[in-house]
Amino acid sequence: MGIAEEIAARAAQIDKMIEGYLPTEEGYARTVLSAMNYSVRAGGKRLRPMLMEASYELFGGQGERVYPFMAAIELIHTYSLVHDDLPSLDNDEYRRGKKTTHAVYGEAMGLLAGDALLNYAYEILAEAMVNDALANGACETNMARAFAALSSNAGYRGMVGGQVVDVESEETGADSMSREKLSYIYRNKTGALIQAALMIGAILADADEEAVGKMREIGDHLGMAFQIRDDILDVTSTLEVLGKPIGSDEKNHKATYVAVYGMEQAKREVERTSEEAVRILETCGGDCRFLRELFRYLIDREK
Amino acid sequence: MGIAEEIAARAAQIDKMIEGYLPTEEGYARTVLSAMNYSVRAGGKRLRPMLMEASYELFGGQGERVYPFMAAIELIHTYSLVHDDLPSLDNDEYRRGKKTTHAVYGEAMGLLAGDALLNYAYEILAEAMVNDALANGACETNMARAFAALSSNAGYRGMVGGQVVDVESEETGADSMSREKLSYIYRNKTGALIQAALMIGAILADADEEAVGKMREIGDHLGMAFQIRDDILDVTSTLEVLGKPIGSDEKNHKATYVAVYGMEQAKREVERTSEEAVRILETCGGDCRFLRELFRYLIDREK
Repeated sequence: MGIAEEIAARAAQIDKMIEGYLPTEEGYARTVLSAMNYSVRAGGKRLRPMLMEASYELFGGQGERVYPFMAAIELIHTYSLVHDDLPSLDNDEYRRGKKTTHAVYGEAMGLLAGDALLNYAYEILAEAMVNDALANGACETNMARAFAALSSNAGYRGMVGGQVVDVESEETGADSMSREKLSYIYRNKTGALIQAALMIGAILADADEEAVGKMREIGDHLGMAFQIRDDILDVTSTLEVLGKPIGSDEKNHKATYVAVYGMEQAKREVERTSEEAVRILETCGGDCRFLRELFRYLIDREK
Repeated sequence: MGIAEEIAARAAQIDKMIEGYLPTEEGYARTVLSAMNYSVRAGGKRLRPMLMEASYELFGGQGERVYPFMAAIELIHTYSLVHDDLPSLDNDEYRRGKKTTHAVYGEAMGLLAGDALLNYAYEILAEAMVNDALANGACETNMARAFAALSSNAGYRGMVGGQVVDVESEETGADSMSREKLSYIYRNKTGALIQAALMIGAILADADEEAVGKMREIGDHLGMAFQIRDDILDVTSTLEVLGKPIGSDEKNHKATYVAVYGMEQAKREVERTSEEAVRILETCGGDCRFLRELFRYLIDREK
């Protein structure tokens, strides 16, 4: 089985696992449940849960205790896209070749479905922690640490922070963008959840502090590589391959890495950061074959 | 000291406690931090943390372990108001006599500040749980249970669910509103967080299941009484007293309890549900004087 097939098989498994967490569309509030499920089922690469599970396995983690965290991080990623697509932010009608949530359910329901998805991620963690506590007399420290890593990287010190600066930097254009600020945006908007995924896998597998620190570093590099690759694809890909209009960054005068540093430098930075991620990964011990190939795949992806 | 002064003194203490959790407005993302802090500082009665603390005390709870939960529930309440005020929902420019968050910071920042506030509530809980786990070797079961009560009541099975049905019921008007659906909206949109506050106080004070169940019931009645009182004030109060335009429910053709059942029946229902709440409260044992007076005060309030 090639890496593409292996990734597809894992994504299918993750889809099935997440499906088990989705609410049944019934009762008075079923419109929002339907909008939540639509958003999650609209797909995506399931990259964050996949990274989390692979990190968990790398450090010898076994069993299903990582599942609620995998589901939660994907729901948080999904809510961020739903809100990002809203008219007051990017105002996107399509994502991954499908209508965005608010384009189908209306703006009010897009807003509320995003809120419900974010909150539900934590409901899932809370239930897992209660079950752990009831089974063992108290809730394991690593679960609390994983909860802290997820919530902290998802909030104003992480993903939301990056999103805010990204929004504010639009329209100011490439000229006024400092290297430091661009790096802040990428590390937080895109990097923070990727980093959380890798760290949480290690934490739940009871890896030591040094290993969790390495995952933090790897996540930082990988997030950067992944986002710059995204910028490159916005220039070089097509609507058919990408499932959304290309050239939108330029249209929005967005100060991307490509706009600020040019295409060649962007490609070199993707190489440099992904090589650095692999270099650190190989010092972690254990069988890192899948993660290494996954990193490579993400960097070489065409969509 | 009369009950009004006692409530004001407690609210001031709560303000001070919450202030200690607010992020410092610095760094690239400071606009959203400023919007978060503006939203929280815009005030309000601090009713939910006050109910939580009083319930905690009623069941013999001591010390500061209830503080992170008090802060978290107020942040969740605040985020819900910030999103509720957005143009795609109620489109309100004023609340409590002050400009709403999006009216000051713009719609994109209102959306993101709400997201950041909701997420931050859980960051606060996560940090408290990690600290508890590091101090005691594992995280106490009651903290996990309190986390579950908060998250579950804040989401699609609670506050967001009620909000969704409320939004969908607008424009359909009073005629098409069933008693059951109106009750669903009130119990969830308004009741769910009030209920969570009372339950969490009991849970963290290590009260037994029966006591937590009583708090659940009380919260249900009190939430109903509180929301109907809100509807009554929307008809009978003034802009100056309420800090927001009155008559907005009628203008929006909103199917409130008053619109559906009339003013007299609404007043009777406030009396009935609040008396029921007090009746159950008095079976809980302990000194319930403050909670009883607080219930009364909330029901008799003029704003």
